Amino acid sequence: MTTTHSQGGDWQAFLDHYREIRDLNNIESVLGWDQSTYLPEAAAEGRGRQQALLSRLAHAHATDADYGRLLERLGNRGDLVPEQERTLALARKAFGRSTRLPERLVGEMSEHWGRTYTAWTKARPANDWAGMIPLLEKSLDLTLEAAGHEDFANPHDAYIDQSDEGMSADQIAQIFGDLQRELVPLVEAVTAAQAAEDASRQLSRGPFGLAQQLAFGEEVIRDYGYDFSRGRQDLTHHPFMSRLGDRDVRITTRYREDDPMDALYSTLHESGHAMYEMGIQDAYLGTPLGGGVSSGVHESQSRLWENLVGRSRAFWTAYGEDFRAAFPEQLRGVSDEDLYRASNAVSRSLIRTDADELTYNLHVMLRFGLERELLAGRLAVRDLADAWQSAYQDNLGVQSPDLKDGVLQDVHWFFGPVAGAFQGYTLGNIMGGQFFAAARQALPELDDQIARREFGPLHGWLRENIYQHGRRYTPNELVQRVTGSDLSAGPYLEYLRGKYSDLYGVQL
Amino acid sequence: MTTTHSQGGDWQAFLDHYREIRDLNNIESVLGWDQSTYLPEAAAEGRGRQQALLSRLAHAHATDADYGRLLERLGNRGDLVPEQERTLALARKAFGRSTRLPERLVGEMSEHWGRTYTAWTKARPANDWAGMIPLLEKSLDLTLEAAGHEDFANPHDAYIDQSDEGMSADQIAQIFGDLQRELVPLVEAVTAAQAAEDASRQLSRGPFGLAQQLAFGEEVIRDYGYDFSRGRQDLTHHPFMSRLGDRDVRITTRYREDDPMDALYSTLHESGHAMYEMGIQDAYLGTPLGGGVSSGVHESQSRLWENLVGRSRAFWTAYGEDFRAAFPEQLRGVSDEDLYRASNAVSRSLIRTDADELTYNLHVMLRFGLERELLAGRLAVRDLADAWQSAYQDNLGVQSPDLKDGVLQDVHWFFGPVAGAFQGYTLGNIMGGQFFAAARQALPELDDQIARREFGPLHGWLRENIYQHGRRYTPNELVQRVTGSDLSAGPYLEYLRGKYSDLYGVQL
Repeated sequence: MTTTHSQGGDWQAFLDHYREIRDLNNIESVLGWDQSTYLPEAAAEGRGRQQALLSRLAHAHATDADYGRLLERLGNRGDLVPEQERTLALARKAFGRSTRLPERLVGEMSEHWGRTYTAWTKARPANDWAGMIPLLEKSLDLTLEAAGHEDFANPHDAYIDQSDEGMSADQIAQIFGDLQRELVPLVEAVTAAQAAEDASRQLSRGPFGLAQQLAFGEEVIRDYGYDFSRGRQDLTHHPFMSRLGDRDVRITTRYREDDPMDALYSTLHESGHAMYEMGIQDAYLGTPLGGGVSSGVHESQSRLWENLVGRSRAFWTAYGEDFRAAFPEQLRGVSDEDLYRASNAVSRSLIRTDADELTYNLHVMLRFGLERELLAGRLAVRDLADAWQSAYQDNLGVQSPDLKDGVLQDVHWFFGPVAGAFQGYTLGNIMGGQFFAAARQALPELDDQIARREFGPLHGWLRENIYQHGRRYTPNELVQRVTGSDLSAGPYLEYLRGKYSDLYGVQL
Repeated sequence: MTTTHSQGGDWQAFLDHYREIRDLNNIESVLGWDQSTYLPEAAAEGRGRQQALLSRLAHAHATDADYGRLLERLGNRGDLVPEQERTLALARKAFGRSTRLPERLVGEMSEHWGRTYTAWTKARPANDWAGMIPLLEKSLDLTLEAAGHEDFANPHDAYIDQSDEGMSADQIAQIFGDLQRELVPLVEAVTAAQAAEDASRQLSRGPFGLAQQLAFGEEVIRDYGYDFSRGRQDLTHHPFMSRLGDRDVRITTRYREDDPMDALYSTLHESGHAMYEMGIQDAYLGTPLGGGVSSGVHESQSRLWENLVGRSRAFWTAYGEDFRAAFPEQLRGVSDEDLYRASNAVSRSLIRTDADELTYNLHVMLRFGLERELLAGRLAVRDLADAWQSAYQDNLGVQSPDLKDGVLQDVHWFFGPVAGAFQGYTLGNIMGGQFFAAARQALPELDDQIARREFGPLHGWLRENIYQHGRRYTPNELVQRVTGSDLSAGPYLEYLRGKYSDLYGVQL
């Protein structure tokens, strides 16, 4: 659709075309949101066909040859300002990624991922790891073959760069090593100290009504600064945040009748993702700069509002009373301190998605480590199940009695490349710790503000320093700009030590 | 996207391409549905841009030159069976309609309709008819100019054919004349007889809770046969039915806290539209045959389930108890007969969309008559407001004290051609009367079945005789096949006379 423009009009033509690609992607998000929330059950097949058609049109638009030539011409100009350089670089990177792979390989991957995913949905409940081995071996081959078309010495880096731009497997491995060394003994100490009490016992008097759970969570995120005129919350099986338009950033949550913490922290988590997207400056919307910059930075914002704010003592000082008022019978006699402790119960469990703040990173880092070994050829797929068990034993001191909660647990390796899927979660926690420490320095009254539900200063600081910039800076640049330091696990570890030594009276 | 196919593959290539056009239209419906139900308020502008983009892509797909040549080739073949002939004819008609008008005219119309609509939204609350006159004059010119490109001697017929295929202004005028002659004195007699009582007084003890209103309406349409595995109901300002996919036919309703009849009959009405769409045979879905055949036949189904079933005495025998159980305080002492009478209160009002079953047609037919005069050049736009008032005086014995509920009342003439927008409503009532009389003949126990909530026989008869056929037959052909007669107001008038003479004890 791009037509010839004068040199001066090229920039606008580029922005116009890119805007249409984004609009098509946003329409895909509308279809996906509806599929997860309100699609009638018999309509799933037809929706799949609509999505495939739209995705084909969006791909055609994103790989349009005239558009490619336009990007090329703009790349040869010497008169772009740095913000334009960055904008163009991101667009060219996306264009290259969409056009670089041979069609044969794209088709083979798409067919193979589909088959592997279907097989996994059956193999997992059947604990059938043996049947998945040849499929995962082929996945690993395809992962490496596709990486061969990218400009990275280490194939792992090609995938990491897609979600956490500019970071490398080596950089991450070193930081994860720092964190892991400290975290394993910390978890041991905390779980030992906590063994005598059941921190969540106070909340076991359900059921907790859905309407009250939703209303309470929405009260909190409205205070946080989630803007309901530009979003909404609905129920889904798996919670998510999704951008459906420039001013349409929706979240979803799930709930359990016997545990109101589940819906609450899911809502707080997704609201953090959403406020990041909502905070991007208007001028960037619909351009290559108009999104969160990486999975790690995104996760830093969801985890910051979920954990560093939402699981703090100040938080329960602010909301304990309203929470009890929402469930007066169920929470009779439960104090703010009880709620604080219940929201910070630690357990060495088998399931990543159910893990608490402290152990969660161990689940993530061991997966990253296994991925790294697989890609380097130091671990064979057929040995992965055993390596998984050893890693759990070493890190968490537990082993799954079956394979469905072992190596078959997560979908990530079974519907796409065996690389780059997990590191963002823990990168986010690490960055969240760094960002929060910087915010605390800038806002010395932060805890008091939280206890008074005054989130304007924190939200404003995050918008000013992080949100507004969208993808203007790489994740490493952003961390540098905001904290004055490189990526480092130090502040996050310090936060964990402080919090858990206080909570469980142990010297950490 | 259509590529060259062998003669044998042409038919499949045609169906494949048409299927994609439909899928794009269905995606447009998803965006529209979301816009009316759940779109955050700040997202409206962005959604408009998404819709414009998608509509452009859908138009490009529908007017693709290769596709046009394919239709041409298929049209030259002598080996199509009648069902294929009809399928192809509908596709060629749609293609011709999308490609026939000069681009200049399409652009001018689109620009003018947009401007006129915006002006109307301001002129209506301000009672500013004078300001709308030049815009409507231009609309009329464009309406006539566009019709000049169509193959119809009477320009009015070109527009009627778009929504009520094969019908003509003359045919409709004659039947409307028959109906109107009888209806005017009937309304007079009924309103005189009813004057002493206030049939709706029994229901005036609100408020009626939303959740109960929705639950009751959904109970009824589930009994009717609306399939919630292929649809759902949500709230909107203006109720509608929309097909979002082959097996995704949704409805919406509105509600008033002081009158539970409003939401109920809106739900019943839209469920009738939806069951028609849901009943089309699988083989037709995604083909030119896969939709309701005309606005008149569609309206016959919504009105049949809303009025002929839903406002019958048998209906309230079936549901009176549950309705009272939903609102035990509000409806204390209200009998089934009271509910029957309340749902059939007649009044000579000014607003078409609030009109009762009996007077509604008078509102519609006078609009059709004014349209006819405008298009024939017998009425000037500047005289339309006076003509409107005279028509209301003659037909309903009332006149609007202002213009906003007079000539400026409906959006129809102010966002598109001044033609073909209204006749379907009353055609639907007339056809509904004919279809219901035929159903009653086939199902002698119909009233007893309704009173027992046994809707299977009626729904099955409609599916067998009407729904499954989609657009296989023209409306006139369908009426002939189903009833053995041409379109005629007789059965509908007979139904009205029987019902209202019994209700109000008058000889009609």
